[in-house]
Amino acid sequence: MEQESTEDIFKNPEHYLRNVAVDNVIFGYHDKEIKVLLQRPFVVDKWTITGGYIKKTESIEEAAIRIAYARTGLKDIYLQQFRSFGNPQRSIDSSFTPKHLKKILRTVINQDLWIFDYFVSVGFYTLTEFSNVIIRRGAFDAECQWWPVRELPLMMFDHELIVSEALFALRLHIAHHPIGYELLPKKFTIPEIHALYETILEKPLDVRNFTKRLMATGIITKLNETRAIGPHRAPFLYKFNKKEYQKGLKSGIDLAF
Amino acid sequence: MEQESTEDIFKNPEHYLRNVAVDNVIFGYHDKEIKVLLQRPFVVDKWTITGGYIKKTESIEEAAIRIAYARTGLKDIYLQQFRSFGNPQRSIDSSFTPKHLKKILRTVINQDLWIFDYFVSVGFYTLTEFSNVIIRRGAFDAECQWWPVRELPLMMFDHELIVSEALFALRLHIAHHPIGYELLPKKFTIPEIHALYETILEKPLDVRNFTKRLMATGIITKLNETRAIGPHRAPFLYKFNKKEYQKGLKSGIDLAF
Repeated sequence: MEQESTEDIFKNPEHYLRNVAVDNVIFGYHDKEIKVLLQRPFVVDKWTITGGYIKKTESIEEAAIRIAYARTGLKDIYLQQFRSFGNPQRSIDSSFTPKHLKKILRTVINQDLWIFDYFVSVGFYTLTEFSNVIIRRGAFDAECQWWPVRELPLMMFDHELIVSEALFALRLHIAHHPIGYELLPKKFTIPEIHALYETILEKPLDVRNFTKRLMATGIITKLNETRAIGPHRAPFLYKFNKKEYQKGLKSGIDLAF
Repeated sequence: MEQESTEDIFKNPEHYLRNVAVDNVIFGYHDKEIKVLLQRPFVVDKWTITGGYIKKTESIEEAAIRIAYARTGLKDIYLQQFRSFGNPQRSIDSSFTPKHLKKILRTVINQDLWIFDYFVSVGFYTLTEFSNVIIRRGAFDAECQWWPVRELPLMMFDHELIVSEALFALRLHIAHHPIGYELLPKKFTIPEIHALYETILEKPLDVRNFTKRLMATGIITKLNETRAIGPHRAPFLYKFNKKEYQKGLKSGIDLAF
C-alpha cells in the first residue's frame, strides 16, 4: 500500500521536502464530458485539487504518480507537468485560508513547523477515463468527487487558476501530441475520437477535415472491422498505431485546429 | 541594489524557501547567433546556468527577475516558465557533484543545513539581445560568459538537460506567441526578423511564406520608410503593432513552421 503523504507529513516531516509540493489536476473523460477530481477537507466549505508532499527519496513525477494512485487506484496514468505556482499568498497564513481553518491548524500543529511558510506547487495534470476510477477519499477530506470543468465549486487558494491553466495547457498540448490511448476503447470509431477532441477543445470540428488531418499523422490505423451502433449504422473501427503514437509523444505531431 | 541570494543564503537561511529554487536559462540573441549565459563556480571545472534561492516574501517569478537582474543588469526581461526539475540526484550529496566540491562544502557549511537535501528547480528562460547585457559575475563564480547553444561546455548536475528543454520550449512557444520585441531594433527589416526565426528554429524558412504568415498575424506593421543596407538595397522597415502583439502574447497566434 502506498503511503499517504498528507497523513505521514505530521508524523515524519523530516522525510519530506519543505516548501514545495505537487498538485495534480486529474481530468476525467467519459462520453463527451470532461470532469475534474476535487476534494473538500473537513470543516471547510471550499474544494481543492488533489496533491501532496514530496518525499526526499522520490522525484516530483514519482510523487505525482503516488498521489494520483492514492486517490484513484490507477497505476499507468498519463501525467503531464504544465506549470509551477509560487507566491507568498499560497501560505496557510495568507488571507486565502478560511479563518477558522487557520485557528484549527494553529492549535493542532507546532507553530514553528515549516508547513506555515508558503509552498511552491509543481502542477501536473492527468487525463483518465473516469469510469475506470474508484475514488479513495483522503484521511483529512470530507468529500472527494468529480466536478464538470465548467461548473466548479468554490475553491481554496489559487486552485481555480490551477485548473484553468491545466485545461489551457492540455488544449495546447493536444495540438502537438497524440492523446486518447488511456481514454478510448482499444478499438474505437471516428465519431468516438472526434467527440473526444471536440469535448477537450470545447468547439465543433469539421469531421472530414479532422479525420483527414488525424489520419495524416499516422497515429491511428483503420481496421477491416465495423461495429453496429444502430439498425443502419456500422462505422469502421480504428486502433492506435503504437509505434507512431510513441513517436508522436516524443517528437510531436501537428494537429492544431 | 538587489540582494544576492547565493551570498545571503548562508547568512540568513531563514529568509528563504527550502528545497526549492529557480533556474533561469538566459538566452542571448545577436546577429543570427543564439547563446546562453553560463557561470562556473570557483574550484569546479563545470558550468551552471544562472539561478538562486527564493525569498519567502517574493513569488517565483520575482525571484527569477531578481536573479536575472543580478547577472545582467536588465530590468524589463522577457521571462517564461517552462518546466520544473526535481529528483534525488539533484542534491549536493549525489554523485553528480564533484567530490572535492562536496568536501569543501561539507567543511564550510553546517552539515545539517537543509541545503544538502535535494532541490526542486523551477525552470524559466529569458530571451534578450545580448549586446545589451553587462555581465556581472556572482561572488562564488570564477567566470560568467556567453556560450553558443550548440557548443556548451561540461555542465553540472542536470543543467545540460535544462538548457535543451528550455530551447525545446522556446521553439514550441514561438509557434504560438509573438517574439522579437526585446530582440530587434524598434524599426526592423524583414531579413532581420526572418533571421531571428531561422536562428531560433535552426532551420531555413521560405522567406515569402514566412512574411505572408507573419503579416497575417497582424503583429507587425509595414512603415513607409526604407533603410539603405547597400548600394542597391533599401528594404522597407517594419515595427511591431503593440496592441496586436500584446493580444498575441495573451491569446496566442499561429506561426508553426
